[in-house]
Amino acid sequence: MPTFVQILDFIGTFAFAISGIRLASAKRFDWFGAYVVGFVTAIGGGTIRDLLLDVTPGWMTDPIYLICTGLALFWVIAFGKYLIHMHNTFFLFDSIGLALFTVVGVGKSLALGYPFWVAIIMGSFTGAAGGVLRDVFINEIPLIFRKEIYAMACVIGGFVYWVCHALGCESYICQIVAGITVFLSRILSVKYSICLPILKGESK
Amino acid sequence: MPTFVQILDFIGTFAFAISGIRLASAKRFDWFGAYVVGFVTAIGGGTIRDLLLDVTPGWMTDPIYLICTGLALFWVIAFGKYLIHMHNTFFLFDSIGLALFTVVGVGKSLALGYPFWVAIIMGSFTGAAGGVLRDVFINEIPLIFRKEIYAMACVIGGFVYWVCHALGCESYICQIVAGITVFLSRILSVKYSICLPILKGESK
Amino acid sequence: MPTFVQILDFIGTFAFAISGIRLASAKRFDWFGAYVVGFVTAIGGGTIRDLLLDVTPGWMTDPIYLICTGLALFWVIAFGKYLIHMHNTFFLFDSIGLALFTVVGVGKSLALGYPFWVAIIMGSFTGAAGGVLRDVFINEIPLIFRKEIYAMACVIGGFVYWVCHALGCESYICQIVAGITVFLSRILSVKYSICLPILKGESK
Repeated sequence: MPTFVQILDFIGTFAFAISGIRLASAKRFDWFGAYVVGFVTAIGGGTIRDLLLDVTPGWMTDPIYLICTGLALFWVIAFGKYLIHMHNTFFLFDSIGLALFTVVGVGKSLALGYPFWVAIIMGSFTGAAGGVLRDVFINEIPLIFRKEIYAMACVIGGFVYWVCHALGCESYICQIVAGITVFLSRILSVKYSICLPILKGESK
Repeated sequence: MPTFVQILDFIGTFAFAISGIRLASAKRFDWFGAYVVGFVTAIGGGTIRDLLLDVTPGWMTDPIYLICTGLALFWVIAFGKYLIHMHNTFFLFDSIGLALFTVVGVGKSLALGYPFWVAIIMGSFTGAAGGVLRDVFINEIPLIFRKEIYAMACVIGGFVYWVCHALGCESYICQIVAGITVFLSRILSVKYSICLPILKGESK
Repeated sequence: MPTFVQILDFIGTFAFAISGIRLASAKRFDWFGAYVVGFVTAIGGGTIRDLLLDVTPGWMTDPIYLICTGLALFWVIAFGKYLIHMHNTFFLFDSIGLALFTVVGVGKSLALGYPFWVAIIMGSFTGAAGGVLRDVFINEIPLIFRKEIYAMACVIGGFVYWVCHALGCESYICQIVAGITVFLSRILSVKYSICLPILKGESK
């Protein structure tokens, strides 16, 4: 039986893969290319984290991520035309994935003995770096650098994790509170169009 | 005396470097930039594989890859105008390189004790990821995501390796059969314009 | 008390971060995005080097790089409009950073027992790869491939390090001479518009 966290991990991977595959389809990639972009979106952040932490990336020890991406591709091929009407559903899943991946990244880094400021960065990589790789592959300026609160939500969640931990909370309490913080930061920032100030551009 | 595999490795590196240098020249890179792009095309896939497998990349233990890229650059500078007429020759070399790099990647991963599904992915990285890095550097959407059977040929070759191994074949038999499979998949898919279906694009 | 090298490291990091943040502002990134691009520009080269050398990246053991990037962002936000008139000052800082990062990269690789030709490549990565990552993120063809002597200055400095070492110089003499070589190569090549030949482009 999969645990509750594994089910959330499955949902997050699926949602991230869908997001990569949909953008790939907008660029007219073939099935294989779309699969690769979906997979990179789903596991890219965790892989960069694991390379930096010098541990074996999770997807190399469990084929579930490959299978998940395959299901996501099948889903887009089969139900692509209905997906447009499910924008809100996927936004919700994507936000759940972001929250979960962040918490997993922070927790893994702390378990390996890294200080909190490293763990917060690693949590943000886990949540947001997959989307950056996706945008590099499809040759777009990464969206997270220009729009809405996205990676910033991971950073906020990481700080909340830190505060909870400093207040002496149990590990699972820290994780739940941090996850909810990421999720709400993301949802509310989109709902109320909260964004960071644009850096005033000098002409190059 | 170099072994047969080393000679094939030399040819593959040379062909991959040429492919990077030619695309760099089309973008009007200088000699140094073209060298770097050629080098990355040749060793990029193997480097990503070795980072993931947590071993020292091959090019850091043997300067042959640097020398090979240097020869490729010299070749393009000296004989550039004749290269256009040698398209078929380089396509052949490139396909040999793809086949060899895939087999090397699969073999190295299995030798390190990884399961077959990881080995197939690593073989595909070895063969195809250099070209993806090349296309990111020259700011194009990676070709392998949109055109022909390329990385797919690596995956097919990896599966054939697996089947041969499961049937109890010797290691060198698996390698030869898998290599020929990659080579033929690539050649035949180009000759008969076989490609994967494009994912139907929703407008973003 | 910080040492002399630490102060130079601080200056180099600051200058590299400014360079990333300025380019990000020209693309209208938000504050967070600009911070990330600045940080990647400053620590990207050293991180790639450390991944290849299989050691923990320096910025994961000391928060000074994060703080430095924060100061750089504050600087651009507060004094952005004056920065244009400080182009020469930043060019100077950037060249100091390039020189220092190269020397640090060569020294670290030698200390880990790698041969000189690997150390020269690692020095060049340390100096120049951050700028390549920056250009990939802002979706431009990396400048160093097309303009002026930049990464080439790192390679020249690395060779000079090697020569000094072969002549039996003390380690700190090698470092000073190599650093000055990188610095002067960069400054003089820009002053006298020295560049490498462009590779004659075939039309693709």
